[in-house]
Amino acid sequence: MVKLAIDAMGGDLAPQEIVKGCNLAIGKHEDLELILFGDETQINQYLVPNPRVTVVHAPKKIDMGEEDPIKEIRNNRDTSLVMAFQAIKDKEADGVVTAGPTQAVIVAAHLIIRRIKGMKRVALAPELPFIGGKSRILLDVGANLELRSEHIVQFAQFASIYLRETRNIKEPLVGLLNIGTEKGKGREVDIAAYNLLKEDPYINFYGNVEPKELFTTPCDILVTDGFTGNMVMKTSEGAAKALGQTLKEEISKTLWGKIGYLFMRKNLASFKERLNPDRIGGANLFGVDGIVVKAHGSSEAYAFYNAIIQAKKSVEGQIIDKMKAVLSEVISDEEL
Amino acid sequence: MVKLAIDAMGGDLAPQEIVKGCNLAIGKHEDLELILFGDETQINQYLVPNPRVTVVHAPKKIDMGEEDPIKEIRNNRDTSLVMAFQAIKDKEADGVVTAGPTQAVIVAAHLIIRRIKGMKRVALAPELPFIGGKSRILLDVGANLELRSEHIVQFAQFASIYLRETRNIKEPLVGLLNIGTEKGKGREVDIAAYNLLKEDPYINFYGNVEPKELFTTPCDILVTDGFTGNMVMKTSEGAAKALGQTLKEEISKTLWGKIGYLFMRKNLASFKERLNPDRIGGANLFGVDGIVVKAHGSSEAYAFYNAIIQAKKSVEGQIIDKMKAVLSEVISDEEL
Repeated sequence: MVKLAIDAMGGDLAPQEIVKGCNLAIGKHEDLELILFGDETQINQYLVPNPRVTVVHAPKKIDMGEEDPIKEIRNNRDTSLVMAFQAIKDKEADGVVTAGPTQAVIVAAHLIIRRIKGMKRVALAPELPFIGGKSRILLDVGANLELRSEHIVQFAQFASIYLRETRNIKEPLVGLLNIGTEKGKGREVDIAAYNLLKEDPYINFYGNVEPKELFTTPCDILVTDGFTGNMVMKTSEGAAKALGQTLKEEISKTLWGKIGYLFMRKNLASFKERLNPDRIGGANLFGVDGIVVKAHGSSEAYAFYNAIIQAKKSVEGQIIDKMKAVLSEVISDEEL
Repeated sequence: MVKLAIDAMGGDLAPQEIVKGCNLAIGKHEDLELILFGDETQINQYLVPNPRVTVVHAPKKIDMGEEDPIKEIRNNRDTSLVMAFQAIKDKEADGVVTAGPTQAVIVAAHLIIRRIKGMKRVALAPELPFIGGKSRILLDVGANLELRSEHIVQFAQFASIYLRETRNIKEPLVGLLNIGTEKGKGREVDIAAYNLLKEDPYINFYGNVEPKELFTTPCDILVTDGFTGNMVMKTSEGAAKALGQTLKEEISKTLWGKIGYLFMRKNLASFKERLNPDRIGGANLFGVDGIVVKAHGSSEAYAFYNAIIQAKKSVEGQIIDKMKAVLSEVISDEEL
């Protein structure tokens, strides 16, 4: 049985879509228990009662536009987000799923759950849209602005364990995002990270990957610092949005275009669906001592359902224990 | 009369497409003179003779895959690229256009033409594809890996002058690429650049721009360090390529899709054309004491023609003299 804490009030469409996502998950998975934190009255409006679901009343919620998340989280222990994270700390649940504001999630994870001993940083690790034939994990996308090479290596180890245990990818291929493919390219941090990744026994290293290969590289995992990862992710979002818009404009310019559209409506819908971030659960937060999945702020029920299943698989795969084993080996190696 | 030096041997399709681009430019613009550097016999195969075109024989060319451009340029003064750059230094031409390897262009510009006095760094400044209703300049995309905030400000000043003088945009709007729109976001360099850009009398500063707005922001100019700019540019290339491929796959999946394609073939061709980098001339190299335009390595005649016209406009707009005026004012301000 996997037990997850749910921040029922986080996200633009909370609590309705969040609770519906929970209903879906509970209906489909008999080995799942959920604890929903949030406004009891509102939650009960949408909740399908089930003995495997508990509701814990949280009188407050974190505002999506919160500008000072550290203060907010320190001073408001009775928000749904903080209470859900506290459940992990108190070992009442194995993982937490929230569609709350990213910065608040990162801060809450740090302050409440805390980092795994030996992990120097935490990383936010979303999955790229499923185009180019496979999905890929990109990290860090903004939990840290600047990183040292050894942080990047830990992230690559963690993401490798994640894919091995939750997706059955035996030896996930890791690429380092860089401005060129040759060894020796990039800033000092990139060159140092290249050398460490290449030597690391826990990592199947591919080499440098230019972001023009973001959706075509054979790599399963792409690592970089948080500033760069954030820029890369947002650029691909921006390009997809602009291209979609441009395509629409061009099609509606002529009558033939509009007629053509009628024929290929289903094809274009399927195209759009492949770019849909809701197909993917959410971003993992790697590095704290508990499973944390951050669903999209705009998550509807199905997206949130996917995020729940993602957290469930991470718990079942015992990815944190496996990362701890790597960390303790690396640390004892260093002590020799 | 504008006089430009042309590296006739640079680029994947040189010299044929390069020379054809020159023929086009000479045919259309009576106030243009060109000096072509390269293999005389090969050039003359494609050249339409004209009194405004001179050919200067260069016995060698720089290899596209050259791994040590500094050594290559120092030791091979008789390559078409080096000789074309030397013509600027010797004041025989007002600007140079080349489709040669980017790193070699940057190195040659530094070693042969040299930086404008007071310019701390040079920037490679391409134009983004014309989607989202307007084109935009992005810089730096890789002439430098790391930059200080004052370098970014100089780039913004230079690009502002360029758009004002060559495109008649009165007050080009400058955005700083960043992970968030609020003031105070980003790394130290970004925060410092924000503050300087805001106060600069030569810059019409918009504020931070997240790359998800890359093709929708009202900004004409987007500034960042060379590593980040390179990643952003390559990500948008990669996303465009992958989306085009995915669209194709989806359309060819069903018969209706294929029929629809027949109707909207022209619309899709026009869509593709809007993403075509050949519509744009090439990247400007800002900061050296001469006009340098780097055309795409894969430039065909029309793309190279556009790059020539771009260089011509920069010469006519006297952008270097105008930047020198800004630099001397800023420098004397600092001396007060």
